[in-house]
Amino acid sequence: MAASIINDRKIEHIAIVQNDEQSDRRRYYFDQVHLAHRALPEIAPEDVDTTTEFLGKKLSFPLLISAMTGGDHVLLERINANLAAAAEAAGVAMGVGSQRVMFGSPAAERTFALRSHAPSAVLLANLGAVQLNYGFGLDQCRRAVEVLGADALCLHLNPLQELAQPEGDTDFRGIAAKIGEVARQLPVPVIVKEVGCGISPTDAQKLREQGIRYLDVAGSGGTSWSRIEHHRHGGDGDDSLGLTFQDWGIPTPLALSQLRGQGDDITLIGSGGIRHGIDMAKAMVLGASLCGMAAPFLKPAMQSAEEVVQVIERLRQEFRAAMFLLGVTSVRQLVGNEALLLRY
Amino acid sequence: MAASIINDRKIEHIAIVQNDEQSDRRRYYFDQVHLAHRALPEIAPEDVDTTTEFLGKKLSFPLLISAMTGGDHVLLERINANLAAAAEAAGVAMGVGSQRVMFGSPAAERTFALRSHAPSAVLLANLGAVQLNYGFGLDQCRRAVEVLGADALCLHLNPLQELAQPEGDTDFRGIAAKIGEVARQLPVPVIVKEVGCGISPTDAQKLREQGIRYLDVAGSGGTSWSRIEHHRHGGDGDDSLGLTFQDWGIPTPLALSQLRGQGDDITLIGSGGIRHGIDMAKAMVLGASLCGMAAPFLKPAMQSAEEVVQVIERLRQEFRAAMFLLGVTSVRQLVGNEALLLRY
Amino acid sequence: MAASIINDRKIEHIAIVQNDEQSDRRRYYFDQVHLAHRALPEIAPEDVDTTTEFLGKKLSFPLLISAMTGGDHVLLERINANLAAAAEAAGVAMGVGSQRVMFGSPAAERTFALRSHAPSAVLLANLGAVQLNYGFGLDQCRRAVEVLGADALCLHLNPLQELAQPEGDTDFRGIAAKIGEVARQLPVPVIVKEVGCGISPTDAQKLREQGIRYLDVAGSGGTSWSRIEHHRHGGDGDDSLGLTFQDWGIPTPLALSQLRGQGDDITLIGSGGIRHGIDMAKAMVLGASLCGMAAPFLKPAMQSAEEVVQVIERLRQEFRAAMFLLGVTSVRQLVGNEALLLRY
Amino acid sequence: MAASIINDRKIEHIAIVQNDEQSDRRRYYFDQVHLAHRALPEIAPEDVDTTTEFLGKKLSFPLLISAMTGGDHVLLERINANLAAAAEAAGVAMGVGSQRVMFGSPAAERTFALRSHAPSAVLLANLGAVQLNYGFGLDQCRRAVEVLGADALCLHLNPLQELAQPEGDTDFRGIAAKIGEVARQLPVPVIVKEVGCGISPTDAQKLREQGIRYLDVAGSGGTSWSRIEHHRHGGDGDDSLGLTFQDWGIPTPLALSQLRGQGDDITLIGSGGIRHGIDMAKAMVLGASLCGMAAPFLKPAMQSAEEVVQVIERLRQEFRAAMFLLGVTSVRQLVGNEALLLRY
Ligand SMILES: Cc1cc2nc3c(=O)[nH]c(=O)nc-3n(C[C@H](O)[C@H](O)[C@H](O)COP(=O)(O)O)c2cc1C
Ligand SMILES: Cc1cc2nc3c(=O)[nH]c(=O)nc-3n(C[C@H](O)[C@H](O)[C@H](O)COP(=O)(O)O)c2cc1C
Ligand SMILES: Cc1cc2nc3c(=O)[nH]c(=O)nc-3n(C[C@H](O)[C@H](O)[C@H](O)COP(=O)(O)O)c2cc1C
Ligand SMILES: Cc1cc2nc3c(=O)[nH]c(=O)nc-3n(C[C@H](O)[C@H](O)[C@H](O)COP(=O)(O)O)c2cc1C
Repeated sequence: MAASIINDRKIEHIAIVQNDEQSDRRRYYFDQVHLAHRALPEIAPEDVDTTTEFLGKKLSFPLLISAMTGGDHVLLERINANLAAAAEAAGVAMGVGSQRVMFGSPAAERTFALRSHAPSAVLLANLGAVQLNYGFGLDQCRRAVEVLGADALCLHLNPLQELAQPEGDTDFRGIAAKIGEVARQLPVPVIVKEVGCGISPTDAQKLREQGIRYLDVAGSGGTSWSRIEHHRHGGDGDDSLGLTFQDWGIPTPLALSQLRGQGDDITLIGSGGIRHGIDMAKAMVLGASLCGMAAPFLKPAMQSAEEVVQVIERLRQEFRAAMFLLGVTSVRQLVGNEALLLRY
Repeated sequence: MAASIINDRKIEHIAIVQNDEQSDRRRYYFDQVHLAHRALPEIAPEDVDTTTEFLGKKLSFPLLISAMTGGDHVLLERINANLAAAAEAAGVAMGVGSQRVMFGSPAAERTFALRSHAPSAVLLANLGAVQLNYGFGLDQCRRAVEVLGADALCLHLNPLQELAQPEGDTDFRGIAAKIGEVARQLPVPVIVKEVGCGISPTDAQKLREQGIRYLDVAGSGGTSWSRIEHHRHGGDGDDSLGLTFQDWGIPTPLALSQLRGQGDDITLIGSGGIRHGIDMAKAMVLGASLCGMAAPFLKPAMQSAEEVVQVIERLRQEFRAAMFLLGVTSVRQLVGNEALLLRY
Repeated sequence: MAASIINDRKIEHIAIVQNDEQSDRRRYYFDQVHLAHRALPEIAPEDVDTTTEFLGKKLSFPLLISAMTGGDHVLLERINANLAAAAEAAGVAMGVGSQRVMFGSPAAERTFALRSHAPSAVLLANLGAVQLNYGFGLDQCRRAVEVLGADALCLHLNPLQELAQPEGDTDFRGIAAKIGEVARQLPVPVIVKEVGCGISPTDAQKLREQGIRYLDVAGSGGTSWSRIEHHRHGGDGDDSLGLTFQDWGIPTPLALSQLRGQGDDITLIGSGGIRHGIDMAKAMVLGASLCGMAAPFLKPAMQSAEEVVQVIERLRQEFRAAMFLLGVTSVRQLVGNEALLLRY
Repeated sequence: MAASIINDRKIEHIAIVQNDEQSDRRRYYFDQVHLAHRALPEIAPEDVDTTTEFLGKKLSFPLLISAMTGGDHVLLERINANLAAAAEAAGVAMGVGSQRVMFGSPAAERTFALRSHAPSAVLLANLGAVQLNYGFGLDQCRRAVEVLGADALCLHLNPLQELAQPEGDTDFRGIAAKIGEVARQLPVPVIVKEVGCGISPTDAQKLREQGIRYLDVAGSGGTSWSRIEHHRHGGDGDDSLGLTFQDWGIPTPLALSQLRGQGDDITLIGSGGIRHGIDMAKAMVLGASLCGMAAPFLKPAMQSAEEVVQVIERLRQEFRAAMFLLGVTSVRQLVGNEALLLRY
């Protein structure tokens, strides 16, 4: 697929997410998880330390601006620059969208060269894992990391998204082994993520056997790529594949609680439908060490870094409030602490 | 009942199904069944083999155009011809509607003589089992199979539908034994099916004792014959028997999971309210080897074989997608594989 | 309370039931009970014997027109005469409303003297049990039975209804023992019933110790006396006692299933919110031997016996259909037969 | 914070509660608790003794007008005077709002000096527990009790409310121990209460270790302080902290049933979303010895003591009705008596 087409596609995605409210499924699966309020937290908000470490760097709180975009277009450049500057300013992690485009269109590279905007932030490179079956290999992975100056490489698994595109790359044969190979040779860790359908225990087990230690569940409930692709290949009326599968997948809280039993050597990232700091606290109680959020950052990122920072600050305030109201002072006390769940 | 009346009745049924949206109950019982997405299917869509065998013939995927119509009328002839041509072209199974009419009106026979339109397809003859108490016997069963060139004979059980008609044939005494007798002597297998109320474990056990090895549960959730008959004997206002019983019966997914325990010598067909390929995958995970769908084919069948093929192709694409996203390459891996269910 | 006031009250009740749709709470609690359809009933509708015995008399099916009215007014007379004639014609049981009025107003007696309209029907006399604390005793009970020529005497328990009236008779002290005394001396059996709030296991146990063998649960879900009394003492706005308590009580299906364990020497009547023959079948599967229905008979009874018979015939047809579709030929096979419940 | 600001704030609170219907969350959590009706209560309403003792004084029934207001303003004065006069007349307990204001503005004192209006009523003083970290101590607690002539001191825990205010006092460090100290030295008992988020078992255990024997759960479902504070710091659009946390907390019935297991030496008060006498009965069956209600008293208290008495009388009538219909004659029979719960 030509790089210019990928560029156009990225613009199209963004337009759809902006225009179709229902591309965010708003299933609010986290509303079914309840936390045990502490009337007597016995701490002060100042005691609440929302900071955490991820990949050896400190974050002001466990937030990841999830992978979204990049490519040779002024809008994409602006979005990424704003997100990176905001991540740096606010002390959170940031992932870029798939960097595949830059291998066909060198002009796209500069939109991923974000280290100058974010010298100290955790930055995550991104490629589609399935591309390892389409000519990509260790070299491209290295290059993706280099251009960004990334702390890790996200390899995303998106079988439904690929399938919902006529031009999709859908050969997922042997991908687990290839991910493992890359992971063993890359100088930075590999994070495997979905894009909105969740990772099942079986998937997690396979990846663990390949030495993967970071999983971003990216479950269902928030952005639906199936629905977005339906719009791109529209005209099909009500029964396109994308529309029929728009709610396919494992809800994020369920995915997290299923993976918790998998072993302590796995670091989980919770994403997919997280919309405020209470959801973040819930994801962490269910086992996540970091929380990702994508779609809600798009609109502010089209404006300015400041607007992005504002959203982040609101999330931090909410997350800190939730920690305070649960009486916990450190992120470590939160992760996987099921005593904080309210049982009905 | 005179054959001409049966003909008129068939036309009436079709008009009602077309005009009363609620004759399809749209209960979406399958929405309560959840499948375990595989982010890492480790296969390519090409590896997915949706083909299956049914009655010794190959199907492109496990779809049955369920029994609907036939009779001495140009519309009925067109519908059946289009369905048969589409079944042949798309490689799926097709059942005809009750052939009882042809015993009173020889002119109706030609609308069941579909083998020329579908030389290699699985074709299923159809008679009401209750007719075995109303003068029908092995001869008529044989004849029904012959005219169609059928691979099997469906005997349908429809006690509610018969009861909801003033002129209904409702003597179901000794029917199990008579079905057994026919089955033992007919050169092709007998499939016993309901028409939208489901088959209970008790029913299944009785039929198994009679040597029946094929059951089509045809449960509730989709087309309601009780409601359709209500319209035909209308004028009763809100409290006709048909309306009161419109949601009577065993929901299709429940019927399937109850019958699964019954033993491996039973081949199950899932039908009643299946509306897309995800539903098909769910029915198969719950134990079905073949999935039937009726009402949604009616409108395209009134147009052309091509329109029917289009609907089938969409279903196949969806079913294949579901298999791919579950990481299974063969239909065999799907049937009754409860590991593919997502447990909440 | 003067007899004329009671008469007026009865008229008022009827007007309220007619005008306030919500006095029937329409909670449809029976919709949560599911029956196991038999595709292969192995019987004919003619085999279905809906008849049953109650109090030594034969009923065409287990229906009771529940206690409603009576009193010195032409409308009340007409209602009772029509109900009685219909009960006779259709072969069902009938209860009259409270006969207390006739002890103050002899003119009211004739509206309870229904034996001439229904020479062979089961007729049930009716008095409020609480009246045993307000000057009534064995004499009045005997007289109530005599005037009607009743087969049994219903003593109703209505603590909420009494409480929702300013003029209510609410002293329920020692009522169980007094009911027992009456029961031991009366020539006909005593049936104890509620009027829409249900009978709990504790109540049932007390009554059993007093030798009572017939209980009509009259649970919540249908007619709400609390709401009706709210209207009569209206003007209170939204917060009258009657309105606040309008849904108080034990739902009829729950009341039945709780009482089933109580012992085989209790004959249960199910009533409260039963609205068609499927509900009747469900009530019987849950343990009832007879099903009562009140409010839905009011309107036809104001017209003619024929209209009442029509409603009864519809119910019988539905009940018979349900029996047929469950493959049972006798009422005995239905009562308390939990194998007929569909388990989810 | 200057006293005049506190005064203004109190007025603002009241205006918000009056104008924003949704500040009362109307979650009706008590609707999910069902009570077992007794058709045969075997008592008369006169036998029902709704009286109870609280802090050595007799109440006509277990109602507490929960803490609301006070301060140097004619409206606040009127509200408190009306509530106190009504509490006296109707024989119920009354709490005042936080008395902190009177330490900065001596003129506010008179609005808390309610003993003259309510010579024999149970009156509860009120201070924010968190103030023990902001210069308050035993002296202020004593003074708060003295001015009111209080029977006990309520120390409220409101971490969410404080956090939702920019000017909030949020240092809850060591508060449990300080509460314990005050409790050990104060001449009257200390009651610890929340203000709408509930008290968890962990909180209760801490307080018990400090010798606290009275807890008012004040759970979620009714008035939301988080939402009220959102209005005061409005203009934030849809995503203020206050709005995001508006439904945070433990629902009142759940909080009660969780605390029941904590030990018999704890006296529980149920509050938060109680709206009528049936809710009161439910709270008591779940373990409360007293029931608090706040927001619904605000409007009548702005009118007159008589209007408040009317509301109280309606509640008493409802509560008495519930007791009667459960067949219990004393409040003692109600508290924690789970046999009165209806199990589905
Ligand atoms: C506009 C947009 C573009 C995205 N592009 C990518 C991508 O290139 N690579 C990737 O791994 N995920 C991508 N995602 C998925 C997100 O990283 C994330 O997993 C998912 O959207 C769930 O988060 P949400 O519900 O908060 O939006 C994209 C999401 C959005 C909204
Ligand atoms: C118009 C129409 C006619 C039908 N006629 C027959 C029939 O003659 N014989 C039969 O066994 N089933 C008949 N059926 C029932 C179907 O075969 C099937 O069991 C049922 O409709 C459930 O499928 P659905 O919900 O996908 O429509 C008919 C269904 C429709 C919609
Ligand atoms: C208009 C009307 C009057 C009633 N009067 C009496 C009565 O006098 N005595 C009695 O025991 N029950 C009386 N009932 C209660 C019924 O017998 C029955 O228990 C209750 O209404 C539940 O049935 P339903 O939901 O089918 O109406 C009356 C019901 C209605 C609707
Ligand atoms: C206007 C208003 C003011 C309140 N002020 C106080 C207060 O000063 N101190 C306190 O402990 N609780 C205060 N509360 C909380 C109540 O005492 C109670 O815990 C809570 O509102 C739950 O009850 P409800 O749902 O019946 O309103 C106030 C409540 C209202 C509605």
